[in-house]
Amino acid sequence: MHTQVGIVGAGPAGLLLSHLLHLEGISSVVLETRTREQIESTIRAGVLEQGTVDLLTEIGVGERMKREGFVHTGVELRFDGQGHRIDLSDLTGGKAITVYAQHEVIKDLVKARLETGGEILFGVSDVSLHGIDGDSPKIRFIQDGEQREIACDFVAGCDGSQSMCRSNIPEDKRSQYSRIYPFGWFGILVEAPPSSEELIYAHHERGFSLVSTRSADVQRLYFQCDPKDSVDNWSDDRIWAELHARLDTAEGSQLNEGRIFQKGIIGMRSFVFEPMQYGRLFLAGDAAHVVPPTGAKGLNLAVGDVVVLSRGIAGFYKSGSRDRLDAYSHIALKRVWRAEHFSWWMTSMLHRFPDQDAFQNRLQVSELNNVVNSRAAATMLAENYVGMPIG
Amino acid sequence: MHTQVGIVGAGPAGLLLSHLLHLEGISSVVLETRTREQIESTIRAGVLEQGTVDLLTEIGVGERMKREGFVHTGVELRFDGQGHRIDLSDLTGGKAITVYAQHEVIKDLVKARLETGGEILFGVSDVSLHGIDGDSPKIRFIQDGEQREIACDFVAGCDGSQSMCRSNIPEDKRSQYSRIYPFGWFGILVEAPPSSEELIYAHHERGFSLVSTRSADVQRLYFQCDPKDSVDNWSDDRIWAELHARLDTAEGSQLNEGRIFQKGIIGMRSFVFEPMQYGRLFLAGDAAHVVPPTGAKGLNLAVGDVVVLSRGIAGFYKSGSRDRLDAYSHIALKRVWRAEHFSWWMTSMLHRFPDQDAFQNRLQVSELNNVVNSRAAATMLAENYVGMPIG
Repeated sequence: MHTQVGIVGAGPAGLLLSHLLHLEGISSVVLETRTREQIESTIRAGVLEQGTVDLLTEIGVGERMKREGFVHTGVELRFDGQGHRIDLSDLTGGKAITVYAQHEVIKDLVKARLETGGEILFGVSDVSLHGIDGDSPKIRFIQDGEQREIACDFVAGCDGSQSMCRSNIPEDKRSQYSRIYPFGWFGILVEAPPSSEELIYAHHERGFSLVSTRSADVQRLYFQCDPKDSVDNWSDDRIWAELHARLDTAEGSQLNEGRIFQKGIIGMRSFVFEPMQYGRLFLAGDAAHVVPPTGAKGLNLAVGDVVVLSRGIAGFYKSGSRDRLDAYSHIALKRVWRAEHFSWWMTSMLHRFPDQDAFQNRLQVSELNNVVNSRAAATMLAENYVGMPIG
Repeated sequence: MHTQVGIVGAGPAGLLLSHLLHLEGISSVVLETRTREQIESTIRAGVLEQGTVDLLTEIGVGERMKREGFVHTGVELRFDGQGHRIDLSDLTGGKAITVYAQHEVIKDLVKARLETGGEILFGVSDVSLHGIDGDSPKIRFIQDGEQREIACDFVAGCDGSQSMCRSNIPEDKRSQYSRIYPFGWFGILVEAPPSSEELIYAHHERGFSLVSTRSADVQRLYFQCDPKDSVDNWSDDRIWAELHARLDTAEGSQLNEGRIFQKGIIGMRSFVFEPMQYGRLFLAGDAAHVVPPTGAKGLNLAVGDVVVLSRGIAGFYKSGSRDRLDAYSHIALKRVWRAEHFSWWMTSMLHRFPDQDAFQNRLQVSELNNVVNSRAAATMLAENYVGMPIG
């Protein structure tokens, strides 16, 4: 079996890369250890940057997103007993975000790939890379109990935060940067109408909380918690009491309760793996970097990566030159570090740290006041939130 | 002895307040434990915000500052082997900073007060406050070996970071916020021509350094050091080697050496005392708040405080209403916390922390890149640096 680009992982990075390559006339095969049902139902992020929306639309996979997604032209920052709207569109020359769940993007991408003859092998196991520092790398894996091998020109490691691919880069050729945050997010899915038309990022002495919407009937709410806590400690009543305590601070605030049908705790960390390439292996998305969810950047960073990578690969096949491909990591990392900083900044400004003193609390409020009172500061938040340019 | 406002401390806050009150026809007496020679020669900050310059000009004490001060329309941020100019004036609609030493401002203010019949009692001792929670506070002190007393309507505590005045506010009525930084600044004064036309704020893995100018012949250079280090450990050669290592990173960079005629180490801390008033006592300047010098805000915050305070006092004598005076702390603290955050932010972005990991280092560089590449981020720095509006 041979293909031009072997792609490990059918998350947003791998699927979008496969489709972008297809549009350039470049063949690829996507390998995924999970089933199609699994990847299409795993609930993750849900905020798409303007550039992500534009790209999906441009490449013909944005139809359902346009129909079912929610365009938000602003977000609310709530702190010190008051809500303040950041008018994203006004501050960025008309850009906005679209709330549309990651697994819906995945469904749209899988559908588009399969309709255009794309090859996605679901449920494979024991995937391994061979010869990535030579001219003809190979990917070995087991499918339906049989050992198989794909020979390819390039390998794209799009296999997520626990990436097997990146471990193929020799230890003396790589650096890792990371930060574990001393808190997590308790997330719930609720059957209820939206409590707010736009997302609410709420700073409170009890900790951060986030109000977001999934649909007219389903809401996604989060509140900062101990990352080692257990969902078993949180009855529905306790959850609502906590959310009300953190959110019922601003006048006219509303929090619609409803049946909680999913509870979960996620840890929060920042992580960057450098370089994002070695020989004929290229990492993209969570395989190369993780951000805490506060900045809503994870999926969008994956999109940025594969746009740059697909241009490099297409450049190679057109010109025979690796110049652009060799610059992939350098180019991608600029945007990655911008998003890493933004995500760290939003996280640090909005969360309560276990060792937080009164001075730090006042600093947070002072910074939040500046963000809502200074057009420059609000623009800095807005331009990062709707997304910095790709490449 | 009676006066309308008894002012403790002949620093920039006390002297400027006295002059502002004089212009409103309100009498004051300034008490200072040091001699006139001492306050006129103690070397402190040297960056005046646009609003400070405008105010000093407007009230007639800006003549020498206009003649001898240096107007800077930009500053340089140097990091990652490159210098980047932040065009303060372009980003703030024409505002700038003026480099003019604090003790020169003090000389101008002392002269102006004495020329207009102002009373400044130098070299007093054992200053104490009495009855600040009643209607007729008194200040007792010793002058020329004799116990004296001033009866006044209001007391202004402008007695600096070790303020005696603020200790008169009952413990259960006050809060203190503080942060000690794990580094200090090693400062030198050098006989040499300027190395740069504008200030250079340099980020380096060896630590922060700052190039500033005093005059055509005298330069002020700083580099981050251990706050517990001793100047005795630093020969001139070692100082120059350290400065060259941190500053000779950008192309075309220049560092003019010369005779070092002063060396000193200053600690760095943030501190806010709330509220800034109690009964008939009002705190202003360092007595109420301290900032690390990175943001060049200390003197300018004192100016902001006394502008607000003088308006409140003038309002009282005109209308008999304390409303404006009672709002003093609330109004002044907004600007104070803005500057506290800005100073903390500049300090955190530019210094090397003892426990700094590789991730934090990359975050700093990413943030610095954003400040020089995003007009919004550059504007945020610039508008804070030239000074936020007073009141």
